[in-house]
Amino acid sequence: MEVGGGSGPGWDKLLYMFEEGNARMRQILGGKGANLAEMTRIGLPVPPGFTITAQACVYYSATGSFPSGLDEALDDGIRALERRTGKSFGGEGEPLLLSVRSGAAVSMPGMMDTILNLGLNDRTVRGLAGATGDLRFALDCYRRFLTMFGNVVLRIPHDRFEDRLSAEKARVNARYDVDLGPESLERLCGEYKQLIRASSGSDFPQDPRQQLAMAVRAVFESWNNPRARVYRQVNRIPDDLGTAVNVQCMVFGNTGSDSGTGVVFTRDPATGARELYGEYLPNAQGEDVVAGIRTPRPISQLAGDMPQVYQELVRLCELLERHYADIQDIEFTVEHGRLYVLQTRAAKRTAAAAVKAAWDMAQEGLLSREEAVLRVDPDQVVKLLHRNIDPRAKLEVLATGLPASPGAASGRVVLDADRAEELGQQGERVILVRPETTPDDIHGIVAAQGVLTSRGGMTCHAAIVARHMGKPCVVGCDAVRVEPDSRELRIGERRLREGDLISIDGATGRVILGEVPLVEPELSPEFQGILAWADEFRRLKVRANADTPQDAQKARSLGAQGIGLCRTEHMFMDAGRLPVMQEMIMAETEEERKRALDRLLPMQQKDFEGILKAMEGYPVTIRLLDPPLHEFLPNVEELAVEVAKGRLLLELEGGDAGPSGGAGAAGEGGARVGRSSRAISPGDLARKEEVLRKARALAEFNPMLGLRGCRLGIVYPEIYHMQARAIFLATAALRRAGIDARPEIMMPLVGHPRELEVTRALVQQAAEEVRRETGVDVTCPIGTMIEVPRACVAADRVADHADFFSFGTNDLTQTTFGFSRDDAEGKFLPIYLEQGILRDNPFAVLDGDGVGVLVEMACRLGRKTRPDLKLGVCGEHGGEPRSIALFHRFGLDYVSCSPYRVPIARLAAAQAQLRETVGEREKVGE
Amino acid sequence: MEVGGGSGPGWDKLLYMFEEGNARMRQILGGKGANLAEMTRIGLPVPPGFTITAQACVYYSATGSFPSGLDEALDDGIRALERRTGKSFGGEGEPLLLSVRSGAAVSMPGMMDTILNLGLNDRTVRGLAGATGDLRFALDCYRRFLTMFGNVVLRIPHDRFEDRLSAEKARVNARYDVDLGPESLERLCGEYKQLIRASSGSDFPQDPRQQLAMAVRAVFESWNNPRARVYRQVNRIPDDLGTAVNVQCMVFGNTGSDSGTGVVFTRDPATGARELYGEYLPNAQGEDVVAGIRTPRPISQLAGDMPQVYQELVRLCELLERHYADIQDIEFTVEHGRLYVLQTRAAKRTAAAAVKAAWDMAQEGLLSREEAVLRVDPDQVVKLLHRNIDPRAKLEVLATGLPASPGAASGRVVLDADRAEELGQQGERVILVRPETTPDDIHGIVAAQGVLTSRGGMTCHAAIVARHMGKPCVVGCDAVRVEPDSRELRIGERRLREGDLISIDGATGRVILGEVPLVEPELSPEFQGILAWADEFRRLKVRANADTPQDAQKARSLGAQGIGLCRTEHMFMDAGRLPVMQEMIMAETEEERKRALDRLLPMQQKDFEGILKAMEGYPVTIRLLDPPLHEFLPNVEELAVEVAKGRLLLELEGGDAGPSGGAGAAGEGGARVGRSSRAISPGDLARKEEVLRKARALAEFNPMLGLRGCRLGIVYPEIYHMQARAIFLATAALRRAGIDARPEIMMPLVGHPRELEVTRALVQQAAEEVRRETGVDVTCPIGTMIEVPRACVAADRVADHADFFSFGTNDLTQTTFGFSRDDAEGKFLPIYLEQGILRDNPFAVLDGDGVGVLVEMACRLGRKTRPDLKLGVCGEHGGEPRSIALFHRFGLDYVSCSPYRVPIARLAAAQAQLRETVGEREKVGE
Repeated sequence: MEVGGGSGPGWDKLLYMFEEGNARMRQILGGKGANLAEMTRIGLPVPPGFTITAQACVYYSATGSFPSGLDEALDDGIRALERRTGKSFGGEGEPLLLSVRSGAAVSMPGMMDTILNLGLNDRTVRGLAGATGDLRFALDCYRRFLTMFGNVVLRIPHDRFEDRLSAEKARVNARYDVDLGPESLERLCGEYKQLIRASSGSDFPQDPRQQLAMAVRAVFESWNNPRARVYRQVNRIPDDLGTAVNVQCMVFGNTGSDSGTGVVFTRDPATGARELYGEYLPNAQGEDVVAGIRTPRPISQLAGDMPQVYQELVRLCELLERHYADIQDIEFTVEHGRLYVLQTRAAKRTAAAAVKAAWDMAQEGLLSREEAVLRVDPDQVVKLLHRNIDPRAKLEVLATGLPASPGAASGRVVLDADRAEELGQQGERVILVRPETTPDDIHGIVAAQGVLTSRGGMTCHAAIVARHMGKPCVVGCDAVRVEPDSRELRIGERRLREGDLISIDGATGRVILGEVPLVEPELSPEFQGILAWADEFRRLKVRANADTPQDAQKARSLGAQGIGLCRTEHMFMDAGRLPVMQEMIMAETEEERKRALDRLLPMQQKDFEGILKAMEGYPVTIRLLDPPLHEFLPNVEELAVEVAKGRLLLELEGGDAGPSGGAGAAGEGGARVGRSSRAISPGDLARKEEVLRKARALAEFNPMLGLRGCRLGIVYPEIYHMQARAIFLATAALRRAGIDARPEIMMPLVGHPRELEVTRALVQQAAEEVRRETGVDVTCPIGTMIEVPRACVAADRVADHADFFSFGTNDLTQTTFGFSRDDAEGKFLPIYLEQGILRDNPFAVLDGDGVGVLVEMACRLGRKTRPDLKLGVCGEHGGEPRSIALFHRFGLDYVSCSPYRVPIARLAAAQAQLRETVGEREKVGE
Repeated sequence: MEVGGGSGPGWDKLLYMFEEGNARMRQILGGKGANLAEMTRIGLPVPPGFTITAQACVYYSATGSFPSGLDEALDDGIRALERRTGKSFGGEGEPLLLSVRSGAAVSMPGMMDTILNLGLNDRTVRGLAGATGDLRFALDCYRRFLTMFGNVVLRIPHDRFEDRLSAEKARVNARYDVDLGPESLERLCGEYKQLIRASSGSDFPQDPRQQLAMAVRAVFESWNNPRARVYRQVNRIPDDLGTAVNVQCMVFGNTGSDSGTGVVFTRDPATGARELYGEYLPNAQGEDVVAGIRTPRPISQLAGDMPQVYQELVRLCELLERHYADIQDIEFTVEHGRLYVLQTRAAKRTAAAAVKAAWDMAQEGLLSREEAVLRVDPDQVVKLLHRNIDPRAKLEVLATGLPASPGAASGRVVLDADRAEELGQQGERVILVRPETTPDDIHGIVAAQGVLTSRGGMTCHAAIVARHMGKPCVVGCDAVRVEPDSRELRIGERRLREGDLISIDGATGRVILGEVPLVEPELSPEFQGILAWADEFRRLKVRANADTPQDAQKARSLGAQGIGLCRTEHMFMDAGRLPVMQEMIMAETEEERKRALDRLLPMQQKDFEGILKAMEGYPVTIRLLDPPLHEFLPNVEELAVEVAKGRLLLELEGGDAGPSGGAGAAGEGGARVGRSSRAISPGDLARKEEVLRKARALAEFNPMLGLRGCRLGIVYPEIYHMQARAIFLATAALRRAGIDARPEIMMPLVGHPRELEVTRALVQQAAEEVRRETGVDVTCPIGTMIEVPRACVAADRVADHADFFSFGTNDLTQTTFGFSRDDAEGKFLPIYLEQGILRDNPFAVLDGDGVGVLVEMACRLGRKTRPDLKLGVCGEHGGEPRSIALFHRFGLDYVSCSPYRVPIARLAAAQAQLRETVGEREKVGE
């Protein structure tokens, strides 16, 4: 970076009086400074002041000294303030006191915040006392200033000041700070100055001008303190932005009962209701509100306490809200009945408030409909779509795992699926807690309110199944240790028994002790209104990922325009079907396999009839079988252990004195082992060994990259043929009944054009068979997932055989990065995010510089071959707003996401379109 | 395809007389026809004839009938032949007899081959007898013709003719065919005609013109027979090439002792020696040589039998070899002392012969040096670089697995590593046979001649270690079942005991019963000469992948110009180091880990000193630790079984009547279990449980995509720091000793620029530390593997932090396709290759349309950022000729491959360069 004595663009002017700036000058004046200038400009009662530019800070950071001209500019600024106020900075008579506050363009934790009452010293404190006629007030200000200056500028720990304050209160038997008299305050000021000398090695600076220089320097330096640096690194905020410094004349809320200080929101930030919301403290400075020493009063009480001030405040709120066209969060101070605004900014608000306010403001004419749609943060409104923990509840969080499926649930701990089913049937609410889940646990997951596992990542079995069922789920929670023998559970240090109550929050990963109050989700009329507008604006269509008629119905009610991904594997996980599926897998010949498939066919047909009917008139993209077959078999390690134990016991029994005798002689542990040994008969053992053999043969080193997807359809064409037949038979049956069924068939994991060519031919053959058998033309679009990089670079040739592409961005992210999500999220991704190697989890937000490049390439190449190629995305990114903006830019036709995210996607799609055309006004007012 | 009555380009002329064509007309005349035309053109004694074009066949395939004009062209052709020979086709007097042979542009198995003596019928056979004065000869010709016509054209099984021939021989007590007299032959001809009528439903066609039309049609149809179609599909030969048909006047080698037929190679196809090689049969037709009825004589004997013919043959061979500038494989016939050439083609030859002939021909001035280098097939000469099974040996192949590491070995079966070591130390040659190998087996692999496993793919532990050690290895051989309890081995149906002799061929995957004779590899002076020329021509540099000084030395002696990949993980697999490595992995704190790393540091330093010294003056690219840490720990499933059994036994012991009593009462099986239970003490069990816990924590769902590569260096920076220190300390020590050590440091698995930035900084810090400690500047290039697609698409930003890229095409292929090599090669890749979905195994030959696109993109983007970026490849493709041609085209600086493939790579790199500049002459003569 080039720095040169105050010259060059942005360096010409180092200091702006508030009246010289405006809201658009955030990069120079910071957010706070720009808003103070704006308010001054439109004539609001802002105490006069000036802002030192962020560029001055940048110079200071690089050189360690003020840019030349800054000292002179400060002198000029102070002179201007003296002129405006008639007070004198460090002079005799009524002293000019200042507040010094940092304010970067982006708000940033860890930076120095505020010094009040700067300008006081042993002499001016007397002037203040004289001018106000209130010695106690003046000394109290001095005491506060010494504390803040000592702590913030000279870095003396705050509690060293607090200790002395407490000691003095104890000495004079005072309960509150305000109970301290002038003598006590005078004594404290003396002690503080001693503390400063002892700690910093030099006297407290009596010269106000020196105080100011030191305070500005402290603000500059806080830009580079470690916390701020780390924050910038993680958030990729450039180091060379710098922070501005706001210097403003003090006004005093602590000058008596006609004074006070407070914070007000122009609308209720919790509900969005159009009424002032906030609180104030009479006779107090801002820090008293924060410190919580006295209980503040609700803002409405100001109407009674100071009716005129209240009227003025109401007028001011209306004006600011209208000016910024957004809910404002305003700091104010009343000094002897006169209202001053110290700060305004866009208010932080709940999701519900954001939606309601945007809708109301559009009705009121404050916002256009486009602006109202842009105003709602899609990431935030996710919360409105799931059952949540009441935000007011006090929680005892035991541990935190991965947030695998959003929503919250409470229930009794159960440690196995059978018990979950049993209690569930009795109407108990249960949380199934397992080391990890397998297909054998499905009935337990169905019966449970939510699922908690100690192992697994965001795509482990439990996570996928729970998301699919819309059930809350927390996975990979290392702190949870299941102890099946004792039917106990350890979470960190705490020991729970089966039957104890816990709660989980699948949106944050929290595991909470006991039952917690939940709030039900709702789609408010305002939200529905905003979404209806969004639908008018967006170009991207929104579909849902759904595998059951229930989910399809849900998605449709939330506005889905089709199913973008109907997985067929979960259909086989059903307790009634899994055995048949396993039979199919265990088959040693094509004929045996076909027999099992023949039994699965009518089940599949029924599945497809259900979902096609539920989505009548809308397209339903059905993906043929994708996961590796071993996912349908039990875990190899567990089986191997069972078999080994079984063998050992059979051997021992054979040579033992006698089974019952041995077991009878054993203690409790021995007896249990004895029983379990009897439980494995030689026949059962042989059967288990057979399953183990097959499971081992099917086991893979890297299942993600193994025999799955269309590879299954090529190795076992009879499986895909059965599925295609089931789809077409369902279609024929529905169409004959006058129902507009619109299937689309999708091949998973295609990398080479020939894979699609071959499987497509197989499906077309099934269509032709069904046409011949039923007389119904069941032709439908046939397309492919794009989820390995090879498909992207060869997309032109893949498109030769595809009616549509659907980007499977989960797997595409895994293969593009060479990350397995299950392994990465547990093992190294957290470290990558913490160290800022990656800015976002690429499984949550599409990686635009890597995966996005491939997606864009595939779109371009695919459309080159087939300009009418339909393009969609069905990975989880399809429901994530920033990713949706990219998909919009890439020219996709639709995104598909879980039913609960459909409203989010509708909103985000509209925003992507609007940002292209309308741009954003709201940035200005932040 | 458009076909139109003989019009359009290529259709104008359906038939070429031999004298109208030349060698360049392969696409029209096929290979055989083009060479017959060429020989006719240069005046060699070729019996007159003509060729029907491949385009006529294409028309026939599409329409089922001859193109218009073909019949007339055939009539014209026959008339021309009648004029040339003075004989008459089907007429009175001496009949014109023809051979009809197929001949496509590409030679293809499964197509119809040859019909001889066409034109004979009940009448012309008398003419032939009259003209030759030899009734027996004429009838023998007729008998042969009826057999071939009946079999090839009318598709009557050959053995139905053979049966009748055998019956007649038995009837008259004849030993050989030639012992049959005219009466027998006459009877046979009658029986054959009856057979033809009975089988085909109509009489044998007496009209020669009809015979010819039927024969031509049969050749056309053979183009589309199933075997030919499948062959074309697999080999991606277009279906619309068609085959030409060669019609040629018969000459007869079976007209007495001054006649004969034979095959001659212009040089010895086994050794390349410059001497005629071949054999001939006096008084015989071509088929007799093939049928092996009489033993042919070596060609040298012709010099004594027919000196003039021999002289003529020698002259003709010289002329043809000089004309085609290649070894020729020539068919000839002598009719009454007159020599005729019936076919010439480039001779199939052994690798040794190819090398020697190319070298010799260049010395003789037949080839330029460039042509000589182009003439040697790099894929073929691989064989010259490993110990091989003597090609003359008779083998009993028991099973075939994956060819994991080339070379052949024989030895006694051993079923565990300890036993292998024990016998190895006694000087026994052993083959280690395991279900799969783990790091615990290293000492056994070291001691063994070769390794055979029943599980695993081309990158399983056994395969990698064996390739690394240059030991023959066959993996994933399903048919092999190890039965450790009985110390037996089942291979398919056969049962072997430990100690039995077997052999393996790691180049083909064959497992062979017993000991087999082996031939040692050699780099002949001719091969070295060719390679020296290749070095002059090539632009690509060639490096080797080597991890030990021994391998580096070997690579250097084979011409490597550096080490392109020095893996550091195998250094930790050593028996003495594995425990320290495991200690490092088991460490619970950074401090514990550092203590173990401190012990590993001097070991690593010694490793690096060795290899840097061995490669003095050449760059050595060292890759920091890459594999997931669990690879250094025992297998989880086995551990879990051990622990479960151990627990069970301890429990039972605790509650049992008494351990010794129980065991004593047990039978043999029980006793063994009893002993093994005693083997696990509670202390050992606890230790094993601890290892299991850690191994489980480190276990991954998809290790390929897990915590490995530079991710290790980011999560555990102390590991990479130790390795970098070891490299720099080694460099400093060597440089101080005056040795020119040139390390280059490479980060594995980088996908995001920040990963490289962070690890590079870590390494640079270590360099700075070592510089300060030793005073030696150890700065060295730091670069990255490019092995995930993300690194390719973001290569411009990755290059910001890289001095070089080295493409890890193994992993890049896995991630681009989404194939795990270990799973794909065992499970679905064979089916993909068989069905022609993929033409080549992408792990053997770089996938140009997919992976290659990414490699090219990375080269382009990387050089955009840094024009001097050094580019190399260190995946196995670096030693594969077709892939090397691609790397040459992409502008890489070097390829790196296993030491044994260095000569191959040198040759292939030269050919890639020459093909760009010189082009290829040899294609013409094939």
